[in-house]
Amino acid sequence: MFKNICIIGCGLIGSSLLRAIKKKNLSQKISACDNSKSVLSFLKQQNLADLVTENKKDAIKDADLIIIATPLSSYSSILQEIKDSFSKGIIVTDTGSVKSVANKLFMNLENKDISWIPSHPIAGTEESGPQAGFAEIFENRWSIISPANDSKKEDVEKLENFWKNIGCKVKLMDCNEHDEILSITSHLPHAIAYSLVKTALGNDEKLKQEIIKYSAGGLRDFTRIASSDPIMWRDIFIDNSENVIKILDSFNDNLKNFKKALVQKNSKELEKLFKSTKNLRKEIVDAGQDINKPDFGRKKN
Amino acid sequence: MFKNICIIGCGLIGSSLLRAIKKKNLSQKISACDNSKSVLSFLKQQNLADLVTENKKDAIKDADLIIIATPLSSYSSILQEIKDSFSKGIIVTDTGSVKSVANKLFMNLENKDISWIPSHPIAGTEESGPQAGFAEIFENRWSIISPANDSKKEDVEKLENFWKNIGCKVKLMDCNEHDEILSITSHLPHAIAYSLVKTALGNDEKLKQEIIKYSAGGLRDFTRIASSDPIMWRDIFIDNSENVIKILDSFNDNLKNFKKALVQKNSKELEKLFKSTKNLRKEIVDAGQDINKPDFGRKKN
Repeated sequence: MFKNICIIGCGLIGSSLLRAIKKKNLSQKISACDNSKSVLSFLKQQNLADLVTENKKDAIKDADLIIIATPLSSYSSILQEIKDSFSKGIIVTDTGSVKSVANKLFMNLENKDISWIPSHPIAGTEESGPQAGFAEIFENRWSIISPANDSKKEDVEKLENFWKNIGCKVKLMDCNEHDEILSITSHLPHAIAYSLVKTALGNDEKLKQEIIKYSAGGLRDFTRIASSDPIMWRDIFIDNSENVIKILDSFNDNLKNFKKALVQKNSKELEKLFKSTKNLRKEIVDAGQDINKPDFGRKKN
Repeated sequence: MFKNICIIGCGLIGSSLLRAIKKKNLSQKISACDNSKSVLSFLKQQNLADLVTENKKDAIKDADLIIIATPLSSYSSILQEIKDSFSKGIIVTDTGSVKSVANKLFMNLENKDISWIPSHPIAGTEESGPQAGFAEIFENRWSIISPANDSKKEDVEKLENFWKNIGCKVKLMDCNEHDEILSITSHLPHAIAYSLVKTALGNDEKLKQEIIKYSAGGLRDFTRIASSDPIMWRDIFIDNSENVIKILDSFNDNLKNFKKALVQKNSKELEKLFKSTKNLRKEIVDAGQDINKPDFGRKKN
């Protein structure tokens, strides 16, 4: 258990952490910090933390765990503001979706008094802001921890236990491997969803209304993905651009082959593709990453 | 009300029709026809129709409404088999996702005794087969009817009422317009989902296992789309290839621009894109095509 956990950035994920920490009693004191007045007033009103402030130095005072849950582009200025105010031995982690750039920022600090161990709880919805947060969002989700070679074993264990107590399954993973895998499982799908929705939007207003009306056949699911927080995603793509460009190129090759099969009206090739992709779904359901249960527009159980 | 509705092809959609017709008492008699012995035995066991047979001529005898709910590539051979056995004045419709090719097949019959009026209920899940069907699948979904200029008004109204009684909202639409809109709302998203899942699958086995494990961040949703019935989708892409190629090209242009923004690390451009696509989601929710409610991995209400 921690004595004082400080969350910097209290949107969907940060506010969900506040709720989960409180609910599961994982810290004697909880401090919450955010730049936005309206977020701060929501946190106070909902009584989500013992200390609610926009002053980062006040927020981290006496903290033994800091969790940065802001968009990635804010890390640099946050660090500039608090780098001289860390308590000795403090563990600092985050919830960002790209690890390598954030890692460099902390390495450049050359501050041996702090234990920087990045985390990434793979949890979220397409909504944003503290109103959308809830304690159970982490339940049974993976949280990836990427310690450096010289990270203190004891601190890594503390952080591991923290995420387990929050409700996550924990996996230790090299930060570069993390960034590569996430570029495939998360960043590429988002890049594609945005491009698809932009394509659908590109039509004249009358057609657009029809498209919205009949979106149930597939487009609907992409718009959910494409409606996630714009700033968060802008930062993810900037920080992980190299991996995303690499996998985007490989996606493009597959799309070219698909188009070729269409142009040739090659039934056999199309059938082969569709059969191969059906299997991955089964493996994902088997791996517990989704349920074989229909949702909206489907059978109610 | 019809006297005898005959469903040819009793998979997810066909069997759901059998269930809905029975539940809502929309026909005095229901006949079900399928090529598969296991489907026929399931239909009998579940008592889903008065007549269950693989013989198409027997199935359509005395029918006043035939609904073809097979993959599109079967239409031609079905028509060859039954074209001389239609009762005079019978209404023939279907549930296919592409209309123009099926239309030509019927036009070529030059049979003035039948009223061919294509339908497309935009309903379904990623599952297939009669076990996956359920009566409520059509509830509040759109069914598009594409009458020809010379379709009998009375028959169009009958068919319209049929779909309304099944639970659908009904829209009359020119078949070419239908095929264009569906290429955007449904066929392009499927093409992309397949290509994305194929890209994710293209990695070595160790990486593949990690990808499955951490698929919650976006890929998961695409695998659901990409796990729909392979034969049905093969046929859709063959029949609607021209429209799909056109919209695929426009998607490719958008993807190129996205990649350019990544290569240039153009934050402003990315942010602009992400903000613009967020709005379409809102319009779809407002149009009643989805709910603003979290599903798996999200807040339980």
